[in-house]
Amino acid sequence: MQFGIIGSGSWATALAKILTDGKHCIAWWVRNADTVQHIRQRHHNPHYLSSAYFDNTLLNMYNDVKQVVAESDVIVIAVPSAYVHDALQALPADAFAGKKVVSAVKGILPGSNQLLHEYLAEKFQLDIHHYFTVLGPCHAEEVAAEKLSYLTFSGLDENAAAEIAAYFHTDYINTVVNHDVVGAQYAAVLKNIYALGAGIAHGLEYGDNFLSVYIANAANEMNRFLQRSIEHYPVGVEREAINYTASVYLGDLLVTCYSLYSRNRMFGNMIGKGYSVKAATLELNMVAEGYNASKCVFHTNQQFAVAMPVAATIYEILWEHLPAAEGFAKIEAALV
Amino acid sequence: MQFGIIGSGSWATALAKILTDGKHCIAWWVRNADTVQHIRQRHHNPHYLSSAYFDNTLLNMYNDVKQVVAESDVIVIAVPSAYVHDALQALPADAFAGKKVVSAVKGILPGSNQLLHEYLAEKFQLDIHHYFTVLGPCHAEEVAAEKLSYLTFSGLDENAAAEIAAYFHTDYINTVVNHDVVGAQYAAVLKNIYALGAGIAHGLEYGDNFLSVYIANAANEMNRFLQRSIEHYPVGVEREAINYTASVYLGDLLVTCYSLYSRNRMFGNMIGKGYSVKAATLELNMVAEGYNASKCVFHTNQQFAVAMPVAATIYEILWEHLPAAEGFAKIEAALV
Repeated sequence: MQFGIIGSGSWATALAKILTDGKHCIAWWVRNADTVQHIRQRHHNPHYLSSAYFDNTLLNMYNDVKQVVAESDVIVIAVPSAYVHDALQALPADAFAGKKVVSAVKGILPGSNQLLHEYLAEKFQLDIHHYFTVLGPCHAEEVAAEKLSYLTFSGLDENAAAEIAAYFHTDYINTVVNHDVVGAQYAAVLKNIYALGAGIAHGLEYGDNFLSVYIANAANEMNRFLQRSIEHYPVGVEREAINYTASVYLGDLLVTCYSLYSRNRMFGNMIGKGYSVKAATLELNMVAEGYNASKCVFHTNQQFAVAMPVAATIYEILWEHLPAAEGFAKIEAALV
Repeated sequence: MQFGIIGSGSWATALAKILTDGKHCIAWWVRNADTVQHIRQRHHNPHYLSSAYFDNTLLNMYNDVKQVVAESDVIVIAVPSAYVHDALQALPADAFAGKKVVSAVKGILPGSNQLLHEYLAEKFQLDIHHYFTVLGPCHAEEVAAEKLSYLTFSGLDENAAAEIAAYFHTDYINTVVNHDVVGAQYAAVLKNIYALGAGIAHGLEYGDNFLSVYIANAANEMNRFLQRSIEHYPVGVEREAINYTASVYLGDLLVTCYSLYSRNRMFGNMIGKGYSVKAATLELNMVAEGYNASKCVFHTNQQFAVAMPVAATIYEILWEHLPAAEGFAKIEAALV
């Protein structure tokens, strides 16, 4: 299998490192021609995960996305959800015909409120059976440091998912396979909302006892949402077979909520301390993923109708001017 | 209801603070006469949680356990599991007749391998319907600082549990009630084993990605054990009604595993760094609860026969000289 990677942020760079550390050649789309040149000459991505060293004999670098897709059997999409449309727009409608797509996108596409497989089905007629996700608790920095991490490959075609996963297995990457390709994507969205909320709680000076109760209840709320998501699958999935304490669900929630360096948590902390969303965005020079995710999930849940006292309240704090302390007083009352 | 508290460690002191902050009079057994004198005169426990202030008009202090039990309708037992037998041995066999007992003991009684309700049934003919537990993610230090915390009161008689819980509700304590009085006790034992293991992982230089996968899988293993424990109840309990993501289960696991100051984690860290159990014990001047707990659970699981790759391997590391790195190589392979 020939792999192509679309994206050059820290997570794309980590995935490129994993595949090439396994001695697999990759085609790699990096938008910026200077960055391509730098990686070719200096063996490092100058902007992200710059400590990762690349064996250039294994890299085919392009700044033309069409070429990467054309050369690859499996295309790994690893750009932020807000840039997916932009990154793929140069591709013809049949670009993914006969190919497999692996999504490393952790988010819902803003505007259309779609998961990536929905977008790809609409734009490129990609069959969900040829669509996979690579997700899990995996700070890119720890991949760079080669600390053991677990990646979960999800796909309705579990055999194909396992075949893809095998390419990512290295000394420091263990792989897991499951079939819950929709639920895994929603888990990656929800965890950012709850991590942002954990930051708000910290900003409001709640302690560790409370945080643990909050996260445990968030896990419960997430499980309810994920179970409901199964009913919205285009094809049947066995609900009983899904283990929501596995790394791709609970593990990823934990690492995101407990990481002091997560941008969601930092952003939430400022909201908890009384900053407006606008002021926090200016101060941190970014919008945390959980901010948009809370709106996407709020809208998706108009359809799912799951009881989500935590996520719904975080949405109200971020989007409807509910004071953070009042919001958390509501959350407090809902926790068990 | 007149409450009596047996014990004067940090958790007993926290519970005394909670009840007296709610303006409830308590009878309090403190073994050491000098400590009794100090609390009476200076309003603080000199040895534990010394920042907590007591209104002495609400305290009836004794160093005779018989008197505390005789004066109380509800007796809260808050001594380490290893000292329960010693603390209660002066009591006559009918001491708890017509009374309710609330256990704040987080452990299995070593030697007999009993949960506290089993011991009290054997020694004092206490009916399990008069037995309750108070557990949950609650560092005593955060109670002293009046940071919002959640306590779960478990009892087969849920109405009585709710009645008891009401006495503990304060500005900084929210209460939850459930009926899984056996499972809640086992959860409080298991979390210490997993937290000790988290310390070992840290000592072995695993990172945050791995830790989250480890803890998520520990939660899964814990759930399996707790579900099995229901079959060993003296009376029927509805398994479906138990929410294992609630604070008393997952919440307590999280706060214990993620706390950098937990004694289990510190102890485990030394084991991971290559100290023997004996050397770690000498260095820290204590044995972590997870050490004995791992043995108790190992023996209990001879009967339960639950698949516990994590807890069983931690037992082997601690009690059967399995090198920590070899043990974690086994654990790695079992995680999903």
